Amino acid sequence: MSTSTEAPPLTFPKTPVPPNGPNPLGEGKKIKTAAALVIGDEILNGKTKDTNSNFFAKYCFELGIELKRIEVIADDEDEIVEAARRMVKNYDFVITTGGIGPTHDDITYASIAKAFNQPLKYDEETLKRLTAHASRRPDIQNQTPEQKVARERMALFPENAEVIFVGEDIWVPVCRLEGKLCIFPGIPSLFQRLLAGLTPYLPLPDTRPFRYLIHTSLPESSIAPYLTTLHERLKPEKIRVGSYPLLRLGVTVSLIGEDEARIREIGEEVVREVQGKVVDQTDATGTPKPV
Amino acid sequence: MSTSTEAPPLTFPKTPVPPNGPNPLGEGKKIKTAAALVIGDEILNGKTKDTNSNFFAKYCFELGIELKRIEVIADDEDEIVEAARRMVKNYDFVITTGGIGPTHDDITYASIAKAFNQPLKYDEETLKRLTAHASRRPDIQNQTPEQKVARERMALFPENAEVIFVGEDIWVPVCRLEGKLCIFPGIPSLFQRLLAGLTPYLPLPDTRPFRYLIHTSLPESSIAPYLTTLHERLKPEKIRVGSYPLLRLGVTVSLIGEDEARIREIGEEVVREVQGKVVDQTDATGTPKPV
Repeated sequence: MSTSTEAPPLTFPKTPVPPNGPNPLGEGKKIKTAAALVIGDEILNGKTKDTNSNFFAKYCFELGIELKRIEVIADDEDEIVEAARRMVKNYDFVITTGGIGPTHDDITYASIAKAFNQPLKYDEETLKRLTAHASRRPDIQNQTPEQKVARERMALFPENAEVIFVGEDIWVPVCRLEGKLCIFPGIPSLFQRLLAGLTPYLPLPDTRPFRYLIHTSLPESSIAPYLTTLHERLKPEKIRVGSYPLLRLGVTVSLIGEDEARIREIGEEVVREVQGKVVDQTDATGTPKPV
Repeated sequence: MSTSTEAPPLTFPKTPVPPNGPNPLGEGKKIKTAAALVIGDEILNGKTKDTNSNFFAKYCFELGIELKRIEVIADDEDEIVEAARRMVKNYDFVITTGGIGPTHDDITYASIAKAFNQPLKYDEETLKRLTAHASRRPDIQNQTPEQKVARERMALFPENAEVIFVGEDIWVPVCRLEGKLCIFPGIPSLFQRLLAGLTPYLPLPDTRPFRYLIHTSLPESSIAPYLTTLHERLKPEKIRVGSYPLLRLGVTVSLIGEDEARIREIGEEVVREVQGKVVDQTDATGTPKPV
């Protein structure tokens, strides 16, 4: 086992980012909307808690992409085909997570190939990296031919997929189909690294939203009439007003828009009107903390 | 403020459970499949981490209901209408969570009413409980007429909904439409209590699945050929074989079926074949612990 740990780490070049190269959405177009397809029986039967979709939601928000929908479906070909086709039709950026391992329940690559009427084909560069990676693992080196075939299923991609290597130290690439749909593994740490690595390859929007959170201990019904008026008033400016009660701990009001100065200005008004205070924007999942 | 804490707690009777009463799915029918519709911009923009769907997934599994799909959508009437209609058509038990508060972005009751072509109507019993509840809260008692209207939106339900009071100390009921679709609040603690309270009102399946988890430190590709054979062999017995890798920490194999003795028997074989050990079935989200 010792040789594997003593050898220098394997690295492979990333796929070059086209400087002004082809945009998969078409010249000048940017990603506006997104959807996530989480594939896995283990999420639906409660064995595993999905964390990838929340990570993706934050990722989209920070980049100015509007995440419109998250769906969790079973390891089922018909379900994957239907959802993949519909999402690619409706949104600019679609990701799938899960179902790309070597076992019988890993059917994502094959199902996506079917969804877009493509045969499956081994990707030579992925095979090369996979094999180099395996050469460092004694527990993989002596596999039987059947085990090798199972392993190489992880390099069997839809024929027309773009194969994008986004990390020098990760042999798994991101496959992109139709310029939109990107296939990711389900393992959270790997998902997160690959998603972060994919960013330079995406035609991102030019602007990013700013979020302002105000907490009040008033009951939600007491601030509702003001918020309704505010919501109507801010519609023309495309500022979104949200209201999120915490059980017996008051309400967090959220303002989201692109013009930070304007959001801060409205924020001051909201603080006065709801007798609230500005709270931490990075810890918005639980009880709010003052900034 | 002191009178509110000194008064005895308010309680109201639960809706009686019909002993052999009408089954909303029809005589003798049981719930087999389920779907969850999570409604809320705050999930999609990453502000809030949805925990309700995982709670629901575990709930379904424990009761022998197959959860087929989870969807997270925006506070958007068209999206709610489309998803609610489709889910009611496709599954036996559908829940929604979120969007039932007093503010402008709480549109679930109205959207569901629209989905099933019903007007909205104030529910008298809910109004009574809501008002009694409010009488204990000095911060609500002196509300303006506009604030009262906002509050009473929480009792404005689709006209043909069954209004089921599932907890003596919670004024919020569960509204059920089409015998299938149950509307829940998004606040996790409230969601969990109401879901638990709803159980006696559901036509539950007669059998529950048994899950057995085996952990191995072998690479997933090494056990793949055996698992594929096992999966094919167990298909006629309706035993499902799953395989879930943990990054650099081996693989958890899952066996799910109704016959516990048979699952344990197969489990012993799997332990031998994958050089594994049985792991804790209640802590299946992270690194497995031996039983």
